[in-house]
Amino acid sequence: MEGVFQDQKTYEKMDPEQIVYTVQAWLPVPEGTPGGLFFGTTKLMPGKVGNEYFMTKGHFHTLSDRAEFYWGVQGKGMLILMDGERNTWAEEMCPGSLHYIPAHVAHRVANVGDSTLIFGACWPSDAGHDYTKIADYGFSARILEIDGKSVLIEE
Amino acid sequence: MEGVFQDQKTYEKMDPEQIVYTVQAWLPVPEGTPGGLFFGTTKLMPGKVGNEYFMTKGHFHTLSDRAEFYWGVQGKGMLILMDGERNTWAEEMCPGSLHYIPAHVAHRVANVGDSTLIFGACWPSDAGHDYTKIADYGFSARILEIDGKSVLIEE
Repeated sequence: MEGVFQDQKTYEKMDPEQIVYTVQAWLPVPEGTPGGLFFGTTKLMPGKVGNEYFMTKGHFHTLSDRAEFYWGVQGKGMLILMDGERNTWAEEMCPGSLHYIPAHVAHRVANVGDSTLIFGACWPSDAGHDYTKIADYGFSARILEIDGKSVLIEE
Repeated sequence: MEGVFQDQKTYEKMDPEQIVYTVQAWLPVPEGTPGGLFFGTTKLMPGKVGNEYFMTKGHFHTLSDRAEFYWGVQGKGMLILMDGERNTWAEEMCPGSLHYIPAHVAHRVANVGDSTLIFGACWPSDAGHDYTKIADYGFSARILEIDGKSVLIEE
């Protein structure tokens, strides 16, 4: 998770064994198959790096017009979305919430609660993951804890 | 649901207001959009027509290589699958079960329990529904109650 969080000094002091999130996925067809689907479950631990909540790395899809569904299963999260013009917005995730991630929109999730966040996902098997754009340029906003509240702050 | 069940005489005597199933779907992009996804929830009532459980009509996808996920939420069901060579098989559905419907495979669900069956679904927005092949030729097997058990019986 090097370079993901804003407060790199605090990040470097963290236990390197600390797990931020795990993903279980069912890939019933080979990656890249047109017309197929993949299904995953992500467990995102509660915690912060400085005042920034634990979150996933975030990605665009390699075939950038491929959409995805996320849905909340357990815990309290924020789905952070950014379009190709770097406009960033967020949606609250809770058990039963359903989120459509449209074509050409990068997505990451922050755990803003104090228990493990679990969410489901379904995406096309030919979507692919492009992590490089986010690794290089990040999102244009972050979810930070300010006065005990989770707030989307533009950089 | 005319013509769906084996025992048409019993079907004709049923209350015409009887609801067998309802579908709620979220279609965030126009039908036919490549790369998008749709999300649905189906409620399938408990009941039988003769010794055949209430079930959905069943369909292939119009773009027949498009896959789909179903997952059990509540109740007890059987997912009936048939490939292009009319080989038919079935998978048990229960809360938490996850089912991949591969390319070129028709699918329908029977409620084999005594409470409402609820299942979720996610499918590509350009898949489309082809009900005509099933309306004309049916599946090659049916789930019937025999001696109190649900059994897949070839026709």
